[in-house]
Amino acid sequence: MVSPQLLSRMIKAGTGAVPADTVIKNVRLLDVITGAVTHSDIAIVGDRIVGTHGYYSGNRIVDGDGRFAVPGFIDTHLHIESSLITPFEFDRCVLPHGITTAICDPHEIANVLGADGIRYFLECAERTVMDIRVNLSSCVPATSHETSGARLEIADLLPFLAHPKVLGLAEVMNFPGVLAADADLLAKLAAFQDRHIDGHAPLLSDMALNGYLAAGIRTDHECTTAREAREKLAKGMAILIREGSSAKDLDALAEILDHDTSSFVALCTDDINPLDIAHEGHIEASIRRLIAKGRPLHHVYRAASHSAARIFGLRDRGLVAPGWRADIVLLDDLQACSVSGVFSAGRLVDDELFAMRDTVAPVGLASMKARPVAAADFAVPVRAGRNATPVIGVTQGRIITEHLTATLPVADDLLLPDTDADVVKVAVIERHGRNGNIGRAFVSGFGVKAGAMATSVGHDSHNITVVGVSDDDMAVAVNRLIQLGGGFAVVRDGAVLAELALPLAGLMSLQSFETVADKLQRLREAAAALGCTLPEPFLTAAFLALPVIPHLKLTDRGLFDVDAFTFVA
Amino acid sequence: MVSPQLLSRMIKAGTGAVPADTVIKNVRLLDVITGAVTHSDIAIVGDRIVGTHGYYSGNRIVDGDGRFAVPGFIDTHLHIESSLITPFEFDRCVLPHGITTAICDPHEIANVLGADGIRYFLECAERTVMDIRVNLSSCVPATSHETSGARLEIADLLPFLAHPKVLGLAEVMNFPGVLAADADLLAKLAAFQDRHIDGHAPLLSDMALNGYLAAGIRTDHECTTAREAREKLAKGMAILIREGSSAKDLDALAEILDHDTSSFVALCTDDINPLDIAHEGHIEASIRRLIAKGRPLHHVYRAASHSAARIFGLRDRGLVAPGWRADIVLLDDLQACSVSGVFSAGRLVDDELFAMRDTVAPVGLASMKARPVAAADFAVPVRAGRNATPVIGVTQGRIITEHLTATLPVADDLLLPDTDADVVKVAVIERHGRNGNIGRAFVSGFGVKAGAMATSVGHDSHNITVVGVSDDDMAVAVNRLIQLGGGFAVVRDGAVLAELALPLAGLMSLQSFETVADKLQRLREAAAALGCTLPEPFLTAAFLALPVIPHLKLTDRGLFDVDAFTFVA
Repeated sequence: MVSPQLLSRMIKAGTGAVPADTVIKNVRLLDVITGAVTHSDIAIVGDRIVGTHGYYSGNRIVDGDGRFAVPGFIDTHLHIESSLITPFEFDRCVLPHGITTAICDPHEIANVLGADGIRYFLECAERTVMDIRVNLSSCVPATSHETSGARLEIADLLPFLAHPKVLGLAEVMNFPGVLAADADLLAKLAAFQDRHIDGHAPLLSDMALNGYLAAGIRTDHECTTAREAREKLAKGMAILIREGSSAKDLDALAEILDHDTSSFVALCTDDINPLDIAHEGHIEASIRRLIAKGRPLHHVYRAASHSAARIFGLRDRGLVAPGWRADIVLLDDLQACSVSGVFSAGRLVDDELFAMRDTVAPVGLASMKARPVAAADFAVPVRAGRNATPVIGVTQGRIITEHLTATLPVADDLLLPDTDADVVKVAVIERHGRNGNIGRAFVSGFGVKAGAMATSVGHDSHNITVVGVSDDDMAVAVNRLIQLGGGFAVVRDGAVLAELALPLAGLMSLQSFETVADKLQRLREAAAALGCTLPEPFLTAAFLALPVIPHLKLTDRGLFDVDAFTFVA
Repeated sequence: MVSPQLLSRMIKAGTGAVPADTVIKNVRLLDVITGAVTHSDIAIVGDRIVGTHGYYSGNRIVDGDGRFAVPGFIDTHLHIESSLITPFEFDRCVLPHGITTAICDPHEIANVLGADGIRYFLECAERTVMDIRVNLSSCVPATSHETSGARLEIADLLPFLAHPKVLGLAEVMNFPGVLAADADLLAKLAAFQDRHIDGHAPLLSDMALNGYLAAGIRTDHECTTAREAREKLAKGMAILIREGSSAKDLDALAEILDHDTSSFVALCTDDINPLDIAHEGHIEASIRRLIAKGRPLHHVYRAASHSAARIFGLRDRGLVAPGWRADIVLLDDLQACSVSGVFSAGRLVDDELFAMRDTVAPVGLASMKARPVAAADFAVPVRAGRNATPVIGVTQGRIITEHLTATLPVADDLLLPDTDADVVKVAVIERHGRNGNIGRAFVSGFGVKAGAMATSVGHDSHNITVVGVSDDDMAVAVNRLIQLGGGFAVVRDGAVLAELALPLAGLMSLQSFETVADKLQRLREAAAALGCTLPEPFLTAAFLALPVIPHLKLTDRGLFDVDAFTFVA
């Protein structure tokens, strides 16, 4: 990749014999090894730093006076689909926050489109300014208790192994499958023994955790307590501290990051949307908060950069030093982690750089294969001999649900919502053109008093989930989503109050991240107008259909008791 | 490499559902991340640890009661040839010291045999119990001012790139060549940009160091002061603290190893012989001394294991934890690093394990291609118009020599040794069958009063170096080496007092390490009997012909002024 001619120029520019391509002048360089701060220039040739701790001349000069330089940040685990924008818009959205490398799992699009979805991500990754790396989705579909758009076997993954953007196998969520030595999963694990294997093991501990780790799994982003993280660290797992739109673990895990552990800890967002990125920031916000909590500053920056790179085997990056990839973040303030400039592989990040990218045509534009529904499709008949109806109980900020019951009003032998008791209808409509299943149930906790809200983002199979009071409005919302090719919609009295089209696999917008953030704001307001008390109702709705999260969930096949791991009779 | 069936057994044994292959019972496990010590069993299946922090049953039980367990040690830079034994004997010699991985550069044999020598090492590495990894020699020959047995160009190295034992490019010693962008060297560096590139940059600093690092070079084992090491660390170089038979840097560098730097520091021996290993130990001796100097204990053990593995991209090892390679050292005492048992890839190291190895036929048994010499070959005529003769000055324990002069006795227009002034003869005889060159000069510092000593180990071209008072004895010693196929010999009055045959490329014995250690002891005694005051005369003699080490050296082509980088007129 580096020609002898370019290498020669790098060496000579490093010695100062010839000018560098770019020089960041008079910056204060933070050493993430020792914490020392040194006044220095940073000389760059091509994609590489060639000189530090000295003064250089260059063809392009960037003034670093008054600014600090640190290594580019690495988001070690995320689903770009959860940002609701394409990889190109994600690039434009988060790279200016200092995220020069993103290690993603195209798990959501893979559940809809299979290998075509992974191929799309890899093609995008070849063209973005930031370095997007891909772990290959290990658990598609997540379970056999739902209808997904695709199924990925080991034979589907192997063709991607040699792709330069592929790191390894993505979060192995199916830990019961690992412990039971499920044959399909073993085939995948065996094929990736010499590559990175990413973990996902919430609350797994003791001997069960040992069995899971014996498979060669190396990382975990699902710790929710310091105690859990400390056991995993002691057993050799690298801990990825997650802080995203839904799961927020930083407060609980901050204490594990210190001078002993910082080479074994990294940061990630998992799922975060552009509205939260605009309001709160991305990895740089986690850095700021960890420092504010008293974690040692250079160890926090190390975790966000060099440690992340080493844990995932990215040996070319993670230090601002000669010979390392020129992924550099300039900061106005180290404590505040206030980003004022970013270099990605030696290039100063600006609008022009994004404008020069080649593009990739969107895929999955016809992925909404559900047929239009009618109000009658949401009718729930009274079950003979059963007085109390099971109800999914949701709580703000949690994806775990409660298994509740309610005695509901009845009319014409049909069960009705009870808005006084905050119990409304929920349905999951299969939308991959496979069987037209509709699962129906009741949910509590949204607070809606009228209308309906629908989403085509529904982890992990991404069928349509609709929550509502009115069967008519539920039908309008679902049918509007089908027209849009996927998305979010809020409906009242037959009218669409707000919507966001997500036509790329029913998961991602074709619009700018700014527009998506704006529409998300309007959707939140429209949901509130229905009486919804959840600040993030679409995020909550998107996890109602995930039958691996306790306790009661609804898939297109029906109401699922996660604790008993069986459908409710 | 790991079948799904084996993986299934690893997982199930990890959970405790089935017995492990081997269980180390009731050991005290040191966590090299946090320093915690935990009472635990260690369960092993195949080559992998499958359980810690729990109690296990197994088909084989090893009692760990009263003992500590730490990750196997890694020697990050060494030339096995300098041990004077084959890789198989090296395996048997150092693995019981806890060295489960050795990262070697077959630089010496490559200078004699070229690619055949590297191939021999790789074939051995496939069969040893310990894991021998190979960096491909980058600088063969070291300079053009000597005659080597082979020359390695990039085309000679490329066929080895895909070998599973090959890590990257070995120590890039020719730093002037890097800085001058030498075309052959650039071709090698360019080909290894995605692999590890090992450094060797004694005293290089400031902008010159930046240029060297811009080539993608990542490690250095040549630091001799903490100040030098700190600059290199700040510039992203991993520092390998070296303590071997000749170069001893531990005392000077110990202070750089602390809780900030321990993930960026590792240990190595470079060159060490079996006698010193028997007397002083190997990497475990460095660990002991670093701890005794007050370096934080778990950071010392981390540097010796996990840090070394990460620096060199060996991602499967370096922790005693489930899912990691079962390279484990059992210690009776943590502070003393007293090794009492070693597991290599899950196997308890014992004589039987060594006996089961396949072997590799020795190579280079006819590498001594010099023709017999006569006393007259060592005659040094008086140079008209020159009163003072240049003399190489040696000092105990240093490979740097002084550029001295002396006025020597003359007989029949020939310069004679002056034992009263401690000036004796030295000659280097080309022995690769290329040109029959003989370089002749005088040397001071050996203290010999009679006889001669000869060696076929002579860095880096490994011609014959002979030091002596008597031309007759010098001829006897050289001719004896030719008969032996290489080695060491001490001669007085025409009789061989002691010798060690090194017929494998003129560098390595075919005998056991115990026998070699014994013969080295007898050679030291024989040299002392000649009056030699150097404790390691053969080591000193072996560096007399290395024209990259200041200040005055002798190659087969003549006396070389290293400072002026030209032959003495």
